Amino acid sequence: MSEALPEMQYRHLGRTGLKVSVISLGSWLTYGGHVGNETAFDCVKAAYDAGVNFFDTAEVYSDGQSEIVLGEAIKKFGWKQNDLVISTKIYWGKANSANPGRPLNNNGLSRKHVIEGMNLSLQRLDLPYVDIVYAHRPDRDTPMEEIVRGFNYLINTGKAFYWGTSEWSASEIADAWRIADRLGLVGPVVEQPQYNLLVRERVEKEYRWLYEAHGLGLTVWSPLKGGVLTGKYNDTAAPPAGSRLAESEDGYVKGLRKTVGDDTWTQQLKQVAALKPIAEELGVTTAQLSLAWILKNPHISSMITGASRPEQVRENVRALAVVDKLTDAIIEKIEAAIGNQPVEEVRRF
Amino acid sequence: MSEALPEMQYRHLGRTGLKVSVISLGSWLTYGGHVGNETAFDCVKAAYDAGVNFFDTAEVYSDGQSEIVLGEAIKKFGWKQNDLVISTKIYWGKANSANPGRPLNNNGLSRKHVIEGMNLSLQRLDLPYVDIVYAHRPDRDTPMEEIVRGFNYLINTGKAFYWGTSEWSASEIADAWRIADRLGLVGPVVEQPQYNLLVRERVEKEYRWLYEAHGLGLTVWSPLKGGVLTGKYNDTAAPPAGSRLAESEDGYVKGLRKTVGDDTWTQQLKQVAALKPIAEELGVTTAQLSLAWILKNPHISSMITGASRPEQVRENVRALAVVDKLTDAIIEKIEAAIGNQPVEEVRRF
Amino acid sequence: MSEALPEMQYRHLGRTGLKVSVISLGSWLTYGGHVGNETAFDCVKAAYDAGVNFFDTAEVYSDGQSEIVLGEAIKKFGWKQNDLVISTKIYWGKANSANPGRPLNNNGLSRKHVIEGMNLSLQRLDLPYVDIVYAHRPDRDTPMEEIVRGFNYLINTGKAFYWGTSEWSASEIADAWRIADRLGLVGPVVEQPQYNLLVRERVEKEYRWLYEAHGLGLTVWSPLKGGVLTGKYNDTAAPPAGSRLAESEDGYVKGLRKTVGDDTWTQQLKQVAALKPIAEELGVTTAQLSLAWILKNPHISSMITGASRPEQVRENVRALAVVDKLTDAIIEKIEAAIGNQPVEEVRRF
Amino acid sequence: MSEALPEMQYRHLGRTGLKVSVISLGSWLTYGGHVGNETAFDCVKAAYDAGVNFFDTAEVYSDGQSEIVLGEAIKKFGWKQNDLVISTKIYWGKANSANPGRPLNNNGLSRKHVIEGMNLSLQRLDLPYVDIVYAHRPDRDTPMEEIVRGFNYLINTGKAFYWGTSEWSASEIADAWRIADRLGLVGPVVEQPQYNLLVRERVEKEYRWLYEAHGLGLTVWSPLKGGVLTGKYNDTAAPPAGSRLAESEDGYVKGLRKTVGDDTWTQQLKQVAALKPIAEELGVTTAQLSLAWILKNPHISSMITGASRPEQVRENVRALAVVDKLTDAIIEKIEAAIGNQPVEEVRRF
Repeated sequence: MSEALPEMQYRHLGRTGLKVSVISLGSWLTYGGHVGNETAFDCVKAAYDAGVNFFDTAEVYSDGQSEIVLGEAIKKFGWKQNDLVISTKIYWGKANSANPGRPLNNNGLSRKHVIEGMNLSLQRLDLPYVDIVYAHRPDRDTPMEEIVRGFNYLINTGKAFYWGTSEWSASEIADAWRIADRLGLVGPVVEQPQYNLLVRERVEKEYRWLYEAHGLGLTVWSPLKGGVLTGKYNDTAAPPAGSRLAESEDGYVKGLRKTVGDDTWTQQLKQVAALKPIAEELGVTTAQLSLAWILKNPHISSMITGASRPEQVRENVRALAVVDKLTDAIIEKIEAAIGNQPVEEVRRF
Repeated sequence: MSEALPEMQYRHLGRTGLKVSVISLGSWLTYGGHVGNETAFDCVKAAYDAGVNFFDTAEVYSDGQSEIVLGEAIKKFGWKQNDLVISTKIYWGKANSANPGRPLNNNGLSRKHVIEGMNLSLQRLDLPYVDIVYAHRPDRDTPMEEIVRGFNYLINTGKAFYWGTSEWSASEIADAWRIADRLGLVGPVVEQPQYNLLVRERVEKEYRWLYEAHGLGLTVWSPLKGGVLTGKYNDTAAPPAGSRLAESEDGYVKGLRKTVGDDTWTQQLKQVAALKPIAEELGVTTAQLSLAWILKNPHISSMITGASRPEQVRENVRALAVVDKLTDAIIEKIEAAIGNQPVEEVRRF
Repeated sequence: MSEALPEMQYRHLGRTGLKVSVISLGSWLTYGGHVGNETAFDCVKAAYDAGVNFFDTAEVYSDGQSEIVLGEAIKKFGWKQNDLVISTKIYWGKANSANPGRPLNNNGLSRKHVIEGMNLSLQRLDLPYVDIVYAHRPDRDTPMEEIVRGFNYLINTGKAFYWGTSEWSASEIADAWRIADRLGLVGPVVEQPQYNLLVRERVEKEYRWLYEAHGLGLTVWSPLKGGVLTGKYNDTAAPPAGSRLAESEDGYVKGLRKTVGDDTWTQQLKQVAALKPIAEELGVTTAQLSLAWILKNPHISSMITGASRPEQVRENVRALAVVDKLTDAIIEKIEAAIGNQPVEEVRRF
Repeated sequence: MSEALPEMQYRHLGRTGLKVSVISLGSWLTYGGHVGNETAFDCVKAAYDAGVNFFDTAEVYSDGQSEIVLGEAIKKFGWKQNDLVISTKIYWGKANSANPGRPLNNNGLSRKHVIEGMNLSLQRLDLPYVDIVYAHRPDRDTPMEEIVRGFNYLINTGKAFYWGTSEWSASEIADAWRIADRLGLVGPVVEQPQYNLLVRERVEKEYRWLYEAHGLGLTVWSPLKGGVLTGKYNDTAAPPAGSRLAESEDGYVKGLRKTVGDDTWTQQLKQVAALKPIAEELGVTTAQLSLAWILKNPHISSMITGASRPEQVRENVRALAVVDKLTDAIIEKIEAAIGNQPVEEVRRF
């Protein structure tokens, strides 16, 4: 670490009393997967040392290995759970199935899978509870009441302190609150959507009234849009050999790979190119500009970053020093460069 | 009437017990405005004779004159309210202000305007109650609880039997139900969105789970997209002189006029052109095809049509005879021609 | 009017959808009392012309005459109720008693007096409803549930749109909300406390968490502390002959008169003297400085001003032009001059 | 013990069924801190022998050591938990953090700290549950619903039988009851404020209506105002060397020390001097008079006393014999001597 890192900042998770570092570490698809355990431990340690207290995982990441690695790191470094905020997500639990051909109930948000999935996650993490458990997607085949009751069971039995959603529509979140309010139960206090300079509609428009009405917090993923916002794909016709985008066999990345070169891809590379001179003017990288821009949004409780090397963790944390450089004038320049600010259509009658 | 009209059909308004003609007449911006009263009476009478039992208006249409004309028609023809379904909408009531320079509380969905607006609407209609009262837009400056309580007051005092929304987002409708459920009050049973072959996202995607969850009914407006779906704009560079689109001074139409020739406009004319051969194959007009296509959707309780001549009313009713011609094969052709079927994006994780 | 008045501003009443002018006119103890009716009409008209839409009265003011005068003004000028916001207050209704020796139930917040008092107020105002009805004081001899139910009866029967409190403690307001929440009823949306540069504790400290928790709005009275903040008492040993403070037989003023010359009085004159140079630096009167300072507080929905001459109304409205002059630096100077900023005592344990 | 102690008396904790000795022992900042463990055990034993069944501690006292000592005493003397009433308090748990530089979530009343803090307290006490758990201060950064649900979780999982508050404002207690009532949960049954002859406002005025409305009980701390009411500071210019006030490094005492000699301090010494002749007339010490005066108040469930020597414990218990000497005439003399009886300001309108 050649240079002192900026001091970490903390925010409340939405309107709750829980405080999380604005930068969190998502072990995601990487730890337990194509990155070796020792490297994973180094990344987790680098994050902790930089003031990160919030670590995010999911039952589906690397088929459960991601949770195992995170749990081992906590034990290895002797950390206390009251100094950490740990979250996981329930939905695709095929890892839990002894027989991969019979996923059946190892999936979705039935009471059975919510409870069984949580128990198996806690076993892998080797922890008595997590701070936050997410419904990793909406499950339109399970009644909302069953889902809300399932997550409240986890809270009432002390296996989680809060529950949230990931990639739910605003109306589904509102409906969960309807059920919760009617039954005197707890609704979801946080949503985990994708959010970055290229994907803004949901956070800035669809959810807009949920922040005030329910105190909804956001923990956002893909802050660099799978690396597109670093600008590294602007210089080559195809993802560089060796990059995750070029080689990962992971489902999400394979999906992303298919979009390389399509209209959206081309449009996004143009937007990234337009951001470059603004970043240069500020003396920062396009990636740092992109991360700092997210942190300017007060609805973001935490930005989930990934890293496959400890130095990447520190690189991400350095974005904290860029936030104050984003003056109103700079923000205006950014908007002009990317031209995708969500607008509220107002139609008189 | 040279030819017998198809028999009117009736559907429940959403899951309520109220039955409405699938084709309704929206006096809209026209009656009380640029169409003379006698013509308006003729249109209303033609609709009634064709089996239409459902007439829709709003406090803002023609600055309140639209309600006056509808009320006069009912009296003129000696109709009983138990044979009719009358709806109006509260939101922009500046017409009600003694002093047009002070709209202030003559607008929005505050308890004050919901109640005062309803009272003034009933005065103009000269009726003791309406069947349905709509919140004509969301009002994000008034708490949802105040809105839900306001409309329930109208129901509890017998001034309306049901309440609904118009152009609300799915999440706002869900939130209204949350409040209603918590307080033991009645939520909105019907939404009035735009819906036609060119504007489908909201009805077919955003609202999709509300039909089952709340029994939400739909009364849809602009079934011909302001005339675009008749194909009449495909033949001329500009709206024909004398058409409403060319000449109306009404705010909505003036807004629409500004879009003439832009990218969306051009794209829509192409879609309409692609529909023409399918309509011809069935021996109907593009307009009739478009109306019948709406009626195929079981979530539609009623389609609100406009008319400035009695013959237009009957023309619209003839679309009923086209519905059965829309076989699965034809529907597929239509989808292929317009290429705008909303899709649910599914992202694994 | 030698000079154009600043444009009136409007705010929501707390979190409700109702919009009120930030300056309102309190007919208070004056109209119907020692000021003649014609002068009262002139004041009300001057306020309306200056953009004031909010007029406040109470059953007790001038023994009911104040409501009568306000009602006559509305009729005289042909104003519509939807362009106005009218509030009154229930508590001391001895005016309603045929026999002044038997106040008994013509007082307090029993269901009997809340309903009877409201009916008599509406008779005097000659209006079908008011916008806001206040409980003019807490009534600790009547159960809170009876009080909350009483005011909800007024709302449910259309006699008022909102209810509020005046001079209640924070804990009593919180208790009213407890009852309201449990019963699915409406709690008080606004409180009417005294507030001015010399009396700040309640608004700035005691109520502090109610603004966020319940969206509590404030309509504040005595913005000039009975004239003390004009500085007129700084120049004489006693209230000048002819002033309301010297001569009014009204109970409140007689109470205030007794405080002349005591320690608090002396201390307040010192504080007013310290404000004078700041006002002079800004080129405004101490009164205008005092009014503008109140309007800087975002929790204030409206400031209730009095006037016994139309020119006083306009003088008060001119304070609107002073608000922007109150920069952070000026506010600091004011705080230093009066030295009474409420502080939150923090005790570690 | 040269002389028989008066018989201990017991009262219900507020309106609950739990019975507590009117004199309780607060291990407070002392045990586990500057008083050695053996002396602490002796004090606890002396209290028990005098009939005290109620022992009060907190996670923050002596950084957790206070709980450890109390737990050890219980084990040492072989007491059964059904013969005792044990209370602790959650709020400042930095003692629980592995890393004192990261208090973050080891503080306040978030669900995370309420549950984690309780678990760690029980570990230190080495008990399966406590009788009462207090929220040691209000936490205005955590929603009241989260707080109420957190403490109810402790009750529902058997880790505490009742919950209370300490140094909350009346309006915050009322709000906790609002949430509890709405959700069918349990509200706080007891508050622990400071209360003594010199600090009376909160208990005698601010909380006045909570006793009847919620059956609120009080366990009061600092009955001798940090020793001021013993009169020992009346005889010296400064706290005597060796006294806790002179030497303790504890934060609260250090804060108190700073007030020595200020206006309030001087005023209080005058009040204590005025009490002295009354105490002498009754043949008791000023300290005994002060303690007995507290016990006259029927809203006090228990008075929490401290002691660093067993004889102090017995000295405090002797105050029980003084209560009956406080006739109405004596109480009047006391009021006249201290001149600080809270009055309800009544303002007509």
